[in-house]
Amino acid sequence: MTTAETLPVEFADIVGAAARIAPVAVKTPLLNCSTLDELAGAKIFVKAEVLQRTGSFKLRGAYNRVMLLSPDERRHGVVAFSSGNHAQAVAWAARAAGASALIVMPKSAPAIKAVRTRGYGAEVELFEGDRTAMQAYARLTASERGATLIPPFDDPHIIAGQGTVGLEIADAARALGITPDVVFVPTSGGGLVGGTAIALKKTFPRTAVYAVEPVGFDDLARSLAQGARVENVPGAKSICDALLVPTPGELTFAINRRLLAGSLAIADTEAERAVAALFNHLKIVAEPGGAIGLAAVLSGAISLRGKTVVVVASGGNVDAALFANILARHPTA
Amino acid sequence: MTTAETLPVEFADIVGAAARIAPVAVKTPLLNCSTLDELAGAKIFVKAEVLQRTGSFKLRGAYNRVMLLSPDERRHGVVAFSSGNHAQAVAWAARAAGASALIVMPKSAPAIKAVRTRGYGAEVELFEGDRTAMQAYARLTASERGATLIPPFDDPHIIAGQGTVGLEIADAARALGITPDVVFVPTSGGGLVGGTAIALKKTFPRTAVYAVEPVGFDDLARSLAQGARVENVPGAKSICDALLVPTPGELTFAINRRLLAGSLAIADTEAERAVAALFNHLKIVAEPGGAIGLAAVLSGAISLRGKTVVVVASGGNVDAALFANILARHPTA
Repeated sequence: MTTAETLPVEFADIVGAAARIAPVAVKTPLLNCSTLDELAGAKIFVKAEVLQRTGSFKLRGAYNRVMLLSPDERRHGVVAFSSGNHAQAVAWAARAAGASALIVMPKSAPAIKAVRTRGYGAEVELFEGDRTAMQAYARLTASERGATLIPPFDDPHIIAGQGTVGLEIADAARALGITPDVVFVPTSGGGLVGGTAIALKKTFPRTAVYAVEPVGFDDLARSLAQGARVENVPGAKSICDALLVPTPGELTFAINRRLLAGSLAIADTEAERAVAALFNHLKIVAEPGGAIGLAAVLSGAISLRGKTVVVVASGGNVDAALFANILARHPTA
Repeated sequence: MTTAETLPVEFADIVGAAARIAPVAVKTPLLNCSTLDELAGAKIFVKAEVLQRTGSFKLRGAYNRVMLLSPDERRHGVVAFSSGNHAQAVAWAARAAGASALIVMPKSAPAIKAVRTRGYGAEVELFEGDRTAMQAYARLTASERGATLIPPFDDPHIIAGQGTVGLEIADAARALGITPDVVFVPTSGGGLVGGTAIALKKTFPRTAVYAVEPVGFDDLARSLAQGARVENVPGAKSICDALLVPTPGELTFAINRRLLAGSLAIADTEAERAVAALFNHLKIVAEPGGAIGLAAVLSGAISLRGKTVVVVASGGNVDAALFANILARHPTA
C-alpha cells in the first residue's frame, strides 16, 4: 500500500477533523438486516449518513473547513457552489460559526435542497448554466466580497472531514468484530471516497474500496483507467443529482488513483431500486445518488458471495414526489 | 414519585434486559434537526426505533423474553399473536434461539409484516376475527403444542426489554447534556411507555412521560381518567395498525397509572403528517403508529414552547404503497 505521507491528506488530518466535528456531527449507525443479507448473498452493513445533520455526509467536511476560518475570515463570510448537499452543509456550518453564507446552486436542484439551504440562513442564488460556469461565478463572487470559498471536495480539510466516515466505519467494524472485504462509496468529486479510503485502510489495509458513479458520469472510472483526469461527455442525464461533477478533483484523484480498487457505473433504474430497498429493509430515506452504493451490491457487478460488505448511504435529501414515485415503481425491492 | 419496588417491573430488570439484548439490538440514535425544532418551537429529539432490528422496538422485549426460555422450553417452540411488529420480533428472536415459532396475525395486517415474519423463518397463520378471539386462539394453540406463549406486552420480561428504550434515552440525554421535559411514546398495550417511564425516571424523575394513542383507541387515556382499565368501543378504525389493542394490560396499567403524565389521542391525518415530517426532516421511515409521538408534538395539544422534548419513533414497517400515498398527500410536512 501507498504510504500516507505521499498523499495530500494524512490519517492525522482525519483524526483532527473527527475531534473538530464531534460536538455537532452525528455518529451515524452502521445498519444491517438479515433480509438484505439474504438478498445480496453477503453480509451487508450500511453506514447511514442520511441521518447526518443536514441529511448528508457533507456536513463533516464543510464544518471542519468552516471551523478552521480565522476570526477575520468569518467576518467576511463564505461562498459555496453546490448541487445541494454541500450547500446545506455550508449553510449550517456558517450559521454555527456566525458567518454569512452565499450559496450558488443550479436552477435544476431539487426544491427541498434550496428550501433547506435558505432555512439554515444562507442567501441562495439559483444559477442557470453548466457546472464550470457556476463554479467560475462563485469564485468571482467570493473574491469580490472578500469571502472565503468553501469548495465541495478539492480541499484537504474537506477531504479530511469526509474521511471521518471511514474512521467511524473502522471503529464500528472493530466493535462488531468484522473485517470489511469490500466498501462501496457513492462518488462525485471524490472527497468522500478518498477520505474514507485513507481512514479505513489505516485499520484494514486489505479492504477493497470502490467508488460508485452514475452511468454517464463515470469520469473517475475512466480517469482511473487512463491514469489521468478526464471529463464526462456533456449532455448526459442522471437521476443522481448529487453526483454530476464533470471530472475528478486534483487532490482527490491523487488519493483515489493510489487507494481505490476501482469505480463502478450504475444505471438510474438500479439506483431507484436501491432507494426502495433501503426504504423496505432498513427504514431509511436515501436520495438516488445516496443509494448507489447499495445499487452496486444489488447489481451483481462484482461477486460478493460470502463477503462482508460496507455500503455508504451518503445522502437523503430527496423531494417527496420523486420518492413516492420511486416507491410506486419498485414496491417490493 | 412512586418507589420502584411497588411496580411489577424494577429498574434492575431493565438493566438486566439491556445486557441480555446488547449482542443483537441496535442502540438507536437520538436524532434532531434545527428545521424540526423551528417547526415545533421546541428542542425535539427523536429516538429512531424504526432503525431497530426487525423495524421496531418490539425486538427488545421479544428477544429478552425468548433468551430467558429454558432449553426444554426452546425445544417446544414459541407462539405469539400480533398485528405485525411483535410478530416479526418474536420470529427473529426465536430463530436466533433455535426455537420454532408460530405467529397468529390478523388477516388485515400490512403485507410487509406477514412477509417479513415468514422471512424470519416463522410459521404464520392469518386469523379472521377480532383481537380477543385471536388471542384466545393463540393461547389454545400454544397449550396444545406445549409451546410458550410470548405475549406482546403484559409480561414483566417484555416490559423490561422495551424499557431499554428509556435507558438509552437517558444515556443519550446525559451525553448531550440535556434534560427532557416531556417524552411522547406511541402506545398500544402500554409496555413500551411503561418500561420507558421506569427507566427514564430513575435519571430524570421530573420528566413528564405521555402515552400517545390513535383516536378511537384511547383506552389508556380513558382508563387513566377512570382509574381503572376500560375497553375501546368496538368498530373504530385507524391507520395506526400497530396500536389497535382493546384495553391496557394489567401489569402495564399498574405501571402507567403511577408514572405517566397522561395520554393523548391523535387523529389519522395528524399521524400521516408526522410520517411525512419524519421523512422530510430526519430521513427515517416511520409507519403511522410509529409516528404519532411526533404527531403529538406537531398537533400542539400540549404547550411545548422552549421545552426539551423526546419523541419515540417506534416502528417503520409500512407498505410502500401506503407510504407513497401519504407523501403524495403531505409533500411539504
